[in-house]
Amino acid sequence: MPQTVIELLMSRLKAIGVTDVFGVPGDFSFALNDAIDDDPDMRWIGCTNELNAAYAADGYARVRGKAALCTTYGVGELSAICGVAGSYTEHLPVFHLVGMPSISTQRLGRVVHHTLGDGQFDAFAAMAKPVACASAILTAENAACQIERCIEAGLTRNRPVYMALPQDQANKALPGEYVCAPEAPVSDPAVLAACLEAMAEKFAGAGTAVVLAGYLIARLGLRQTARELLERTGLPFATMFMDKTALDETLPGYVGLYDGRIMNPEVRDFVESCDLVLNLGAHWSDFNTGAFTAHIDQSRMIAVMQHEVRVGYATFPNVEMRDVLAGLDRLLPAKTISHPRAKGLGEPKGAPNDPITPDYLYPRWEKFLRPGDIVMAETGTVSMGLGFALMPEGAEFFNQTLWGAIGWATPAAFGAALGAPQRRTLLFTGEGAHQMTVQELGQFGLHGLKPIVFCLNNDGYLIERLLCKNPMSSYNDLAPWKYAELPAAFGLSDWFCAKVTTNAELEAAMAKAETCGTGAYIEVVMDRMAASPLAQKLGESIKTLYASAK
Amino acid sequence: MPQTVIELLMSRLKAIGVTDVFGVPGDFSFALNDAIDDDPDMRWIGCTNELNAAYAADGYARVRGKAALCTTYGVGELSAICGVAGSYTEHLPVFHLVGMPSISTQRLGRVVHHTLGDGQFDAFAAMAKPVACASAILTAENAACQIERCIEAGLTRNRPVYMALPQDQANKALPGEYVCAPEAPVSDPAVLAACLEAMAEKFAGAGTAVVLAGYLIARLGLRQTARELLERTGLPFATMFMDKTALDETLPGYVGLYDGRIMNPEVRDFVESCDLVLNLGAHWSDFNTGAFTAHIDQSRMIAVMQHEVRVGYATFPNVEMRDVLAGLDRLLPAKTISHPRAKGLGEPKGAPNDPITPDYLYPRWEKFLRPGDIVMAETGTVSMGLGFALMPEGAEFFNQTLWGAIGWATPAAFGAALGAPQRRTLLFTGEGAHQMTVQELGQFGLHGLKPIVFCLNNDGYLIERLLCKNPMSSYNDLAPWKYAELPAAFGLSDWFCAKVTTNAELEAAMAKAETCGTGAYIEVVMDRMAASPLAQKLGESIKTLYASAK
Repeated sequence: MPQTVIELLMSRLKAIGVTDVFGVPGDFSFALNDAIDDDPDMRWIGCTNELNAAYAADGYARVRGKAALCTTYGVGELSAICGVAGSYTEHLPVFHLVGMPSISTQRLGRVVHHTLGDGQFDAFAAMAKPVACASAILTAENAACQIERCIEAGLTRNRPVYMALPQDQANKALPGEYVCAPEAPVSDPAVLAACLEAMAEKFAGAGTAVVLAGYLIARLGLRQTARELLERTGLPFATMFMDKTALDETLPGYVGLYDGRIMNPEVRDFVESCDLVLNLGAHWSDFNTGAFTAHIDQSRMIAVMQHEVRVGYATFPNVEMRDVLAGLDRLLPAKTISHPRAKGLGEPKGAPNDPITPDYLYPRWEKFLRPGDIVMAETGTVSMGLGFALMPEGAEFFNQTLWGAIGWATPAAFGAALGAPQRRTLLFTGEGAHQMTVQELGQFGLHGLKPIVFCLNNDGYLIERLLCKNPMSSYNDLAPWKYAELPAAFGLSDWFCAKVTTNAELEAAMAKAETCGTGAYIEVVMDRMAASPLAQKLGESIKTLYASAK
Repeated sequence: MPQTVIELLMSRLKAIGVTDVFGVPGDFSFALNDAIDDDPDMRWIGCTNELNAAYAADGYARVRGKAALCTTYGVGELSAICGVAGSYTEHLPVFHLVGMPSISTQRLGRVVHHTLGDGQFDAFAAMAKPVACASAILTAENAACQIERCIEAGLTRNRPVYMALPQDQANKALPGEYVCAPEAPVSDPAVLAACLEAMAEKFAGAGTAVVLAGYLIARLGLRQTARELLERTGLPFATMFMDKTALDETLPGYVGLYDGRIMNPEVRDFVESCDLVLNLGAHWSDFNTGAFTAHIDQSRMIAVMQHEVRVGYATFPNVEMRDVLAGLDRLLPAKTISHPRAKGLGEPKGAPNDPITPDYLYPRWEKFLRPGDIVMAETGTVSMGLGFALMPEGAEFFNQTLWGAIGWATPAAFGAALGAPQRRTLLFTGEGAHQMTVQELGQFGLHGLKPIVFCLNNDGYLIERLLCKNPMSSYNDLAPWKYAELPAAFGLSDWFCAKVTTNAELEAAMAKAETCGTGAYIEVVMDRMAASPLAQKLGESIKTLYASAK
């Protein structure tokens, strides 16, 4: 039975399955650092900096359902805040623990380090609020209820939680009794019945229907439920970009990636021609809708979101996605709907000694993927190319489509690899994004993880070149790193590293990477403007969109 | 005459001397990026990530008085916010320009990338407020007055300013007339006269007096004024840690570094024995006062801060430091006060083939310094060792004593070197802090800058080992990088790089670094627990302080 604040915090985190905590230590957070380090059932996962730690926690949460992050006051938490905001935006529960100066220091208003120098201690918790679904400053008096409230919020809203622990509160005894039982949200039965009835009516009147399988299916642990529903009813499904691999792409019902007017006309024609579109947890954002070119009349749409359902123009609040999926399973008859089948990228195009082009690279990468792979795809032209590849069974494609912070993928790949060491982790990143957070590579070695890293070097921020006024503006340029030399400098002396410029070199390096038994790092050199047609089209479209918004 | 919002913004920034803008481009900030790139009198200084850009701007502002930073919406600005907070805490005016989605996108509440996905656009500007002395979202209607208000605030309060520019406002025409004339704050003449009278009275009753030369002297551009005052009056001066080199350490009146009960007993005895202590802009923070062991009775103290004066227990608001210094110069008679003279670290102790120890390293580094050097000293044991070295004429020692975000020094050194390319820039960093922001090294090469970098490798976060419960806790460990291989991987192929473990190797590398004509990078290997006595004492004292605060 936990006796102190820190004991209770650790015990509750362990009870919900938190075993790894990403972070950077600091003097104000030693109580947390020590508690984690001393606990045989917890692991401290040190990162090179706090932003990387936040991204690593995000990647870990994508494969494990939740994650924990620990930073020190001020300097630590603010360094991490962009990463936490990404987890907030993309619905990942990250429990952020922040070590804070003691309450006695706060009362005295002492000017201590890592503060703004004004004797105030409220600013950073306030700054964290917009990117947390619950937050608290823990004291012995409030710890029991606040920890429980925060944990419950994180688990049920699937978003980050902020818990700050003043130094002098960690080892204080808890007063009296406390309740430890986070409650899952419950659907309102009347609303649930009404929305199911409305859905049934829509389905009854629809000749054809398609499901948009959204990322919330994966985030809320509802893959099996959704899959069974689709298999039993025979409903075909498409995904949008952010939702890729929400359901397995090898399922026979998979139509392909729906990207509005930008890509895949066959998928678009099918989806937009259906009498009914059932959106299971997809978000209608710019990059998820082909820059808002996805047009589905709202009257033909049902959207099942985490806590609400929209049927046509009517909204039904306080119903949980899992209950709605279960209800649909009882409700919907099986049906045969003929639909196109998802296509991959086809054969790589190019001769062995040709320079590598997108027409070779992306199809070749597609063939490289294996069942169960973790595919961490960085924001930018890389993910825009790879996003249209067909993923093998059980492979997951991860991308930060909505928050879109470049630099996320390298640490997120570390976090995901650590969270699922039995799976193969592949990182696909452009070199501009990679520069942002590159130092996290060294952490793979600390934990014996063996990812395969593809760093696409096209001499600058290509996506920016595609989007901005003058592609050759100096602000798109980067320092000319020797990428393939980085792993050795970061202490990964046994990794296989290569820099490739021709298709044959790429082939040789990929063959070696698959078999070398160590981590692998392949720098893929392409022409400065060599983007996949997909990225080029999206670029053109976004440019038009924002030009029209001016 | 500027016709549009962006033209006005650029023209006003140039008018106050902003010529370089640090940042990372992004689609929401293209209007800013393009304006800077297209302007022959402005330079875009690309950084590897936004936090590094903020630190670089901070370093630049330290040598140039002000700096500018440009980031994109959400992902960019939040990544930079820890660095901006540091500039806020340490009184550096950094003009932070943020590219924002268009007002029309905001009005429609569209779910676009880099947002929290809720159709809201207010969160990030609100998060920025605690770390800016003024902030505004610029539109055609408000630009003229808001730009002026923000510029004035930045210049007169010497702190960061936040100006967000929605995409669709940049090229809008300005309506009608506007005023462009930031006003400097003016001292209240009655208060000024009263406080000068109170100060004169204090001085008249004091046999001995000493000045604490604070960092605000340097920040507010008052070095020459303060120096003349001290030279004419013969007042001796000490500095505290954050204030080091606020005045030249070669001046005959320099007593040395005052660090409470922790260090330099001779300096302490003198300072604490004086009848009067005149604090010119030093901040009474933990690391600036030997962990609050600096004890000076308030009745014997005069503190001249940026906008107020405290004489004993009385506060006089609305008086400007520069006016007070001018008044003091008219008021104070010359006086002879005998005082100790600042001492350096003495001779390095150790034989050529000995492993490098603090007793050799810090005195040796002191001898390596030259007049005019920019010494960028990272938070941690490195700066705690080097802080007690005596600086040559015109050399400046920079440290982030109050905010204390490790990782600051590497990009800050880049910023300072860029701001003062005619001076020699030396970076002294521990390897743990260096890992945080190491990628900024490559940017030196892009601009032909040739710093000398010392990376102290003691296999972990040494300051944390000194402060925490168990020095060997796993959270103090780091990935085992090959530091001396980093510059080559970052494209600095002509740099002189060395890894040294003995005094003789250190000597040889330093000799080479001084003469090689390129950038130089020296990895200095020391024992895991080899901290200078200074760092050890401070560590013990802080430990006691926080233990007692529990």
